[in-house]
Amino acid sequence: MATGRTLIRELASHLDGTVTVHGWIDTLRLQRRMQFVLVRDHTGLVQLAHRRGGEGDPIEAVLDTVTVESAVRITGKVLANPQVRLGGLEIVPERVEVLAAAESGLPIDERAGLDQRLDWRFLDLRRPSRRLVFEVQSTVERAMRAVAAEGGFTELHTPKLMGAASESGAEVFPVEYFGRTAYLAQSPQFYKQMAIAGGIDRVFEIGPVFRAEPSFTSRHATEFTGVDVEMAWVDGVEEVMEFEERMLRRVLAEVHAEHGERIAELLGAEVVVPKAPFPRITLADAMARLRAGGWDPEGTAVDLDPAGERALAALAAEESGHEFVFVTEYPAGVRPFYHHRPPGRPEVTASFDLLWKGVEITTGAQREHRYEVLCAQAREKGMELGPLARYLDCFRYGTPPHGGFGLGLARLLMLLLGLPSIREATFLFRGPHRLEP
Amino acid sequence: MATGRTLIRELASHLDGTVTVHGWIDTLRLQRRMQFVLVRDHTGLVQLAHRRGGEGDPIEAVLDTVTVESAVRITGKVLANPQVRLGGLEIVPERVEVLAAAESGLPIDERAGLDQRLDWRFLDLRRPSRRLVFEVQSTVERAMRAVAAEGGFTELHTPKLMGAASESGAEVFPVEYFGRTAYLAQSPQFYKQMAIAGGIDRVFEIGPVFRAEPSFTSRHATEFTGVDVEMAWVDGVEEVMEFEERMLRRVLAEVHAEHGERIAELLGAEVVVPKAPFPRITLADAMARLRAGGWDPEGTAVDLDPAGERALAALAAEESGHEFVFVTEYPAGVRPFYHHRPPGRPEVTASFDLLWKGVEITTGAQREHRYEVLCAQAREKGMELGPLARYLDCFRYGTPPHGGFGLGLARLLMLLLGLPSIREATFLFRGPHRLEP
Repeated sequence: MATGRTLIRELASHLDGTVTVHGWIDTLRLQRRMQFVLVRDHTGLVQLAHRRGGEGDPIEAVLDTVTVESAVRITGKVLANPQVRLGGLEIVPERVEVLAAAESGLPIDERAGLDQRLDWRFLDLRRPSRRLVFEVQSTVERAMRAVAAEGGFTELHTPKLMGAASESGAEVFPVEYFGRTAYLAQSPQFYKQMAIAGGIDRVFEIGPVFRAEPSFTSRHATEFTGVDVEMAWVDGVEEVMEFEERMLRRVLAEVHAEHGERIAELLGAEVVVPKAPFPRITLADAMARLRAGGWDPEGTAVDLDPAGERALAALAAEESGHEFVFVTEYPAGVRPFYHHRPPGRPEVTASFDLLWKGVEITTGAQREHRYEVLCAQAREKGMELGPLARYLDCFRYGTPPHGGFGLGLARLLMLLLGLPSIREATFLFRGPHRLEP
Repeated sequence: MATGRTLIRELASHLDGTVTVHGWIDTLRLQRRMQFVLVRDHTGLVQLAHRRGGEGDPIEAVLDTVTVESAVRITGKVLANPQVRLGGLEIVPERVEVLAAAESGLPIDERAGLDQRLDWRFLDLRRPSRRLVFEVQSTVERAMRAVAAEGGFTELHTPKLMGAASESGAEVFPVEYFGRTAYLAQSPQFYKQMAIAGGIDRVFEIGPVFRAEPSFTSRHATEFTGVDVEMAWVDGVEEVMEFEERMLRRVLAEVHAEHGERIAELLGAEVVVPKAPFPRITLADAMARLRAGGWDPEGTAVDLDPAGERALAALAAEESGHEFVFVTEYPAGVRPFYHHRPPGRPEVTASFDLLWKGVEITTGAQREHRYEVLCAQAREKGMELGPLARYLDCFRYGTPPHGGFGLGLARLLMLLLGLPSIREATFLFRGPHRLEP
């Protein structure tokens, strides 16, 4: 930390002392006799109170010309002043330095629309409520990693450049790669399974994933941070779900403890620490119950649509008071060939989605680990085995039973903080029409 | 963890008990009366000892046909046997299940070359010495994050897709992006500075970076995991160097404590926890001293080449017994325009490289934070300001003094573990000729 720097939230312990504060000019209230200035750092706001000294007063001159959002360093005395709302104290400055002046007339203000705010994201982030999102994100990841470390996970970094498009190729970004084409990984799925095949017992990764989907909803991005988990030697998919439950409970408990009050104050959202177990319902049961309530009147749906997800969440909330619900046993027809199917039930997969507040945040499953079964399931879906050879090779030399899940970090943050869009939960959002800044 | 699973390293606490072990067939020694089998999990090896029961003995039949590297589940009794080297115990199996059979004849063995091993990386990773690299990597990152959290850093995920090539464009991968061209980020440099401009006090990121360099050395990859740090309100570059020192000392102390013995045993490398401060030398002094020793006889070098780096490391080791050395004050001519220059010394930058064991592992600097100075320095380098507008905009509204550094995780691991190449320190290496598996 810079020599002698005092954070604004620590000022109370320096009453009557001299401190140096670094921050931005938040508000200027220049009066005839007094100059009042609010200075902001990442920990809070403090008022400077300077009595004008007239001609030759260097502080007066600086405060008369400094612009809002300039970066400043202030040295001064911390005095108690019960009339000041900001902690009942103020600083009487002895030295004011402008380290970097802001141009006057900021390009965005509190009335700016989302797109304009994203164009000037760094200015947007100077608002404490926006920055809070990323303080919470740090806590979320710290809690996830703590649970992973306790569970014996190895954190891996899987490649984002792939030699072949993983699935259909339709939603994959091509990259020019020394005269050939590479593709950006849509998910670490293949690689984390390869790690399991390599004897890494449990794999954890937080990293970027890329989706070339022209989607413009509040829940989609072309690049987002994925949280990926894969566990070897599982007895069944229930073990994977239990791990995710444990992880999310820890995340929400730590966010509640560290940021609950500020989230309520700045964002108006309440952080509820969920009880375990989360409710579970099979997709077939869920659809039957929703249809009884009028959903999908034609009876043609094979999966939940967003309206069905919301209706199911409402049902779960009503019956169990729970914000989460696991939907299990997706039919083999709607899940990829590599899903494991429970013994004797070839029509369903050992899979789940997790809904939170009516939005899907996770897809998970036990994977099929037996080479012959995998090949048969791929053929059943009408797939050619040739293009799958690299994937299938990983199952030729003794790969244990395993399962895992993937979760989008921004979607989790959006739901956690009650934000209207993942654009607000991403440092620099990327969508079909947005590659800047 | 799977119901009732016992890890091999925990067997000693189950003497005379019945356990279930999950792992791979490591070695088969099938004798006339006895079948001895070594089973391996990620925590160790254990011997199974089965006395043949003759026809109708299901265990005998399975062990006679099971192949090496098959994934198995064994239930049996743990007995003391002082003649067995593996912890003085063995398992007498009561049940042996083959969960996934390996094809016989593995595609690689201990004589396989590096390229062949990388083709079958998952089988390569089943060797404990290879997997140790990633256990150490987990510890390295955990230690880095602990230091960052104590220092008040926010962990961010900056975008890997950029709308414009950051620097010359020559070493950037182009991506087809909905009818336009995006580029893969060569470093989070721009974005972490944007976060600082956004009032995030200190920024930390571990994530992929992409370099379209056709380099085939043991130290280069086209995709690698970068560790990036950026700190606001620094008084100078020394503060950045001190933070890196603190981080690396913690990393090496934790790796030494957690893995020192196994690293010595499996890889033959010694982990030395360095003292602070690391030695520091200006580039000018370093070059003068090396030239006195015969380096660069033509006197034309403007920077250290790999031979100069090794010679400097030897010098530092001899004089201070230190494996690390900071080289500081690179001339303005060899560093990018955005480097800060110390007051009154426009010919040098407030920058450093960190060498470890004669190899550069870090480049760092204080950045220029004043808009006018940045523009002047860019013009001085003959750059057009137009293409830099997005970058320069971040400095128009009060960006504090700041500095940071970047570090390649695989290069650090390679040096830490005495590996011959970063290919051994990367889960799945990517180079100009390698995009698989």
